[in-house]
Amino acid sequence: MPEIKVGLAQTNPVVGDYQNNALDILRLMGEAHASGIQLLVFGELALNGYPLGDLSYREDVIASGEAKLEEIVRESKNFPDLTVVLGHASLAKGPKLSMQSSDAIAHNSATVFRAGGVIGRYDKQRLPNYDVFDDWRNFVPGNQELIFEVSGTKCAVAICEDIWERDSARSSSLKAAGVDYLVVPNGSPYTRDKSKQRREAATSFANGMNLAYVNLSGGQDELVFDGDSFLLDAQGNEVISAGINPGLYQVGNAGNISQDPYEKLFEVLVVGLRDYLNKTGQKKVVLGLSGGIDSALCAAIAKEAVGSANVTGVLLPSRYSSEHSISDAEQLAKNLQIDCRTIPIEPAHRAFESSLKLSDLAQENIQARIRAVILMGISNSEGHLLISTGNKSEVAVGYSTMYGDAAGGFAPIKDVYKTDIWKLAESYNKLNGSEVIPQSSISKPPSAELRPGQLDQDSLPDYQLLDSVLELLIEGKRTVAQVVAAGFDSSIVNRIDKMVRASEWKRSQGAIGTKTTEIAFGRGRRVPLTTRFGEL
Amino acid sequence: MPEIKVGLAQTNPVVGDYQNNALDILRLMGEAHASGIQLLVFGELALNGYPLGDLSYREDVIASGEAKLEEIVRESKNFPDLTVVLGHASLAKGPKLSMQSSDAIAHNSATVFRAGGVIGRYDKQRLPNYDVFDDWRNFVPGNQELIFEVSGTKCAVAICEDIWERDSARSSSLKAAGVDYLVVPNGSPYTRDKSKQRREAATSFANGMNLAYVNLSGGQDELVFDGDSFLLDAQGNEVISAGINPGLYQVGNAGNISQDPYEKLFEVLVVGLRDYLNKTGQKKVVLGLSGGIDSALCAAIAKEAVGSANVTGVLLPSRYSSEHSISDAEQLAKNLQIDCRTIPIEPAHRAFESSLKLSDLAQENIQARIRAVILMGISNSEGHLLISTGNKSEVAVGYSTMYGDAAGGFAPIKDVYKTDIWKLAESYNKLNGSEVIPQSSISKPPSAELRPGQLDQDSLPDYQLLDSVLELLIEGKRTVAQVVAAGFDSSIVNRIDKMVRASEWKRSQGAIGTKTTEIAFGRGRRVPLTTRFGEL
Repeated sequence: MPEIKVGLAQTNPVVGDYQNNALDILRLMGEAHASGIQLLVFGELALNGYPLGDLSYREDVIASGEAKLEEIVRESKNFPDLTVVLGHASLAKGPKLSMQSSDAIAHNSATVFRAGGVIGRYDKQRLPNYDVFDDWRNFVPGNQELIFEVSGTKCAVAICEDIWERDSARSSSLKAAGVDYLVVPNGSPYTRDKSKQRREAATSFANGMNLAYVNLSGGQDELVFDGDSFLLDAQGNEVISAGINPGLYQVGNAGNISQDPYEKLFEVLVVGLRDYLNKTGQKKVVLGLSGGIDSALCAAIAKEAVGSANVTGVLLPSRYSSEHSISDAEQLAKNLQIDCRTIPIEPAHRAFESSLKLSDLAQENIQARIRAVILMGISNSEGHLLISTGNKSEVAVGYSTMYGDAAGGFAPIKDVYKTDIWKLAESYNKLNGSEVIPQSSISKPPSAELRPGQLDQDSLPDYQLLDSVLELLIEGKRTVAQVVAAGFDSSIVNRIDKMVRASEWKRSQGAIGTKTTEIAFGRGRRVPLTTRFGEL
Repeated sequence: MPEIKVGLAQTNPVVGDYQNNALDILRLMGEAHASGIQLLVFGELALNGYPLGDLSYREDVIASGEAKLEEIVRESKNFPDLTVVLGHASLAKGPKLSMQSSDAIAHNSATVFRAGGVIGRYDKQRLPNYDVFDDWRNFVPGNQELIFEVSGTKCAVAICEDIWERDSARSSSLKAAGVDYLVVPNGSPYTRDKSKQRREAATSFANGMNLAYVNLSGGQDELVFDGDSFLLDAQGNEVISAGINPGLYQVGNAGNISQDPYEKLFEVLVVGLRDYLNKTGQKKVVLGLSGGIDSALCAAIAKEAVGSANVTGVLLPSRYSSEHSISDAEQLAKNLQIDCRTIPIEPAHRAFESSLKLSDLAQENIQARIRAVILMGISNSEGHLLISTGNKSEVAVGYSTMYGDAAGGFAPIKDVYKTDIWKLAESYNKLNGSEVIPQSSISKPPSAELRPGQLDQDSLPDYQLLDSVLELLIEGKRTVAQVVAAGFDSSIVNRIDKMVRASEWKRSQGAIGTKTTEIAFGRGRRVPLTTRFGEL
């Protein structure tokens, strides 16, 4: 067991809301003090929120954060035995590296303070610049260690990416300097395998030292910081394990942790939607209910995020809607106890048919767009956020109608493959002990119902096959040739690859939604719309 | 005059289209050889296209570019007296810097070759990571000079950002090493003041040496590389000045250069739309014509980009459309000789009214969305790209309807303020010697005509005032307090700032369009959707 009593403080900051972020920080400092904790560690940029994006270039954003930090440090005199490590941005004063040609003006820092006084500041050294991370763009790297003592135990700070380097020389030199305790604030967003990866990185860097890994909690735009903080003792045993929720975690006070990967994923999707609404001051959502599995799962996520009373489901039947679509959607709404309305699209459909001569594809798209007009009408009139219900398989191949089913302010399942949607629905029903999502929505063959008898599988490969190929092409970063070499049919792989590339422009206009995989369609994936590589 | 005969080779590559990019390169090598040129310089990544985005991480993308380079080098044996400097990506072989935590695998290089053999390769050292530039994310920095001789004259290479450092020590040490000639491939996108800035950076870095500054040409997604290559002699005189078009520029063969800033801007907007269509294999465009100035200017840009025969204008009158809106739009279509159709939105409007009870705002939005449904119906049926006609003033404050007038595949004027739209229209008419864009569209007060007697200025500050404040807040990076201190009314500045922040989510789903200013709403501006800084 470590020699000092440590607390892991998971907070859920709003970017730029220093007033409330500081209140949360002070509250946890008080709780920690009351529990006799000696060292309290917060997440990366816990004071400012993370990521800051271009706000990191604004002197007023940085300076008022530093002013708030001073207030917090002053308050710490009320908890004299508590040493605090708090992540925040600080104005960089030295000259910038010649090779860093960016607008950055600030460090990504952690300040150590106790009893009203600052002990020192550490500035993050390795600034990640891949996927959603723009740290090298936004921050100036540091180059100094910060070693401090808590009750005679030597501690050092590293921030997030600092510990992800293989064979790090830093870790050895810290150990050689007598450091016994590594303190690591993180802003580490959820992806499927991240929990395991965090422990691998931490164990490797810890190198026989104690290590406190503290993450943020909560959603920020497309990211969900899933908490999951932990404390490794010098033997590598995990002696504290935090859950996804904000709060103070210490030995003997473990989090409530979902062991099942689909339960965890569902929890993350709920947090992503809930915090996007909370943090942007919205309360109610509206979505179209087709009777299919995607809208059913989105409705369930919405219910868990904001409660039944704040969810409106709208049935928008067309001349092609089947009986079971309507009854499945109605049953779902009843099971979730959400507001349910029915608005047939036939009158508008006929009006457009009378004004326009349309191709078959255009005929299909127009129905999806009429639905969007109605849903956005409700959204505008009643102040509901429209949820877009597309999944990753559809988004990847462009199987959606722009300004139709793609419309919405948030797309909760845009980074979840169709084959996982089914598993999530089953997991949700299992957890609830009943068929909240009607079994028929789960088991029937997917259809957009935009023409008589239409099935997704008329236009797309079987979802099992599609998802396997997509996962290799996107998250696996494999080339078409490599996927074919892995045993997939060449014409199918080429067709899928072509669909992915042709729909880049659609994704560039897509609603944000929670990232759950290594490569989500969002800020972390930056592909030209215009490219011909591999086309010829 | 420089001692050697130099050619500046502006090409318009398509990202990843190595076959055609190489054909252009070889053609210009042949032309240069025929003209007795000794040193031929191409732009940055002229072989691969720029920017590559995440394609830069793909080994197949880099490797097949290098294979194509080898072919070009072999071909150069046919032009034995010609030394070529060609920009391309190359696989990085050394270990990466510990501080560079990215997925980068390649250098941003320029290879010097002659008579079938490689003389050497230079790798870009300063990798920009601001605005639209993600070079530090995409590439591994180099750290070696490349000095080579052409007919006894010592030359050295620097790539784009390399020369933008103030008080560069590199420049002095190259001069001390006897370098007489600096060769600088660039991928420098147009912004309003860029031409002047390029010359300032080049003159400062040249430091008494000759300097060949060679840019790319043409549009790539939201960027337009506007050529503008130049050659400075040792006295700082500009002895070659290229225009915006691709081609070989040498002494005595200057480009056709627009001196008027609005003529140049119009030219850039035409190239941006033209190349987006060309490079994505599209030919025809459709747009709604409201009789207002924005759609009129977009129609003129479209006509210049793809020709009258490929432009369809659609009048979509509503119960609120005024007589002059219809007649101005019809006159414009006649003047531009474009296809013109009229489809009233009343039938669909009535159909939606019968199905939905809507607030006043929703009533307005629904008309814009009906228009989008019709325009996208034509787009889907006839294969036309829909042009979105919003300007920067509107996009900045969110004065647009999502999935309504914001819909489209390309937004040519999204980075042009309203006050500049008027000037562009006047400049276009002046250049054409007639009122192609009806004077009434230019002079009437702007209106969305979504309710009786509505004017933009009912909801927005006067456009002169709005644009002045927006320019300070966005491109000027000023805080609200600073803008107020500059003499603007506090309540107006606060209102504008609030509108800008509240519409972040709309812009996140916006169509791409040509960047013309230092800070465009697009890939270069990365602001969280969720933030409360300055809100309280």
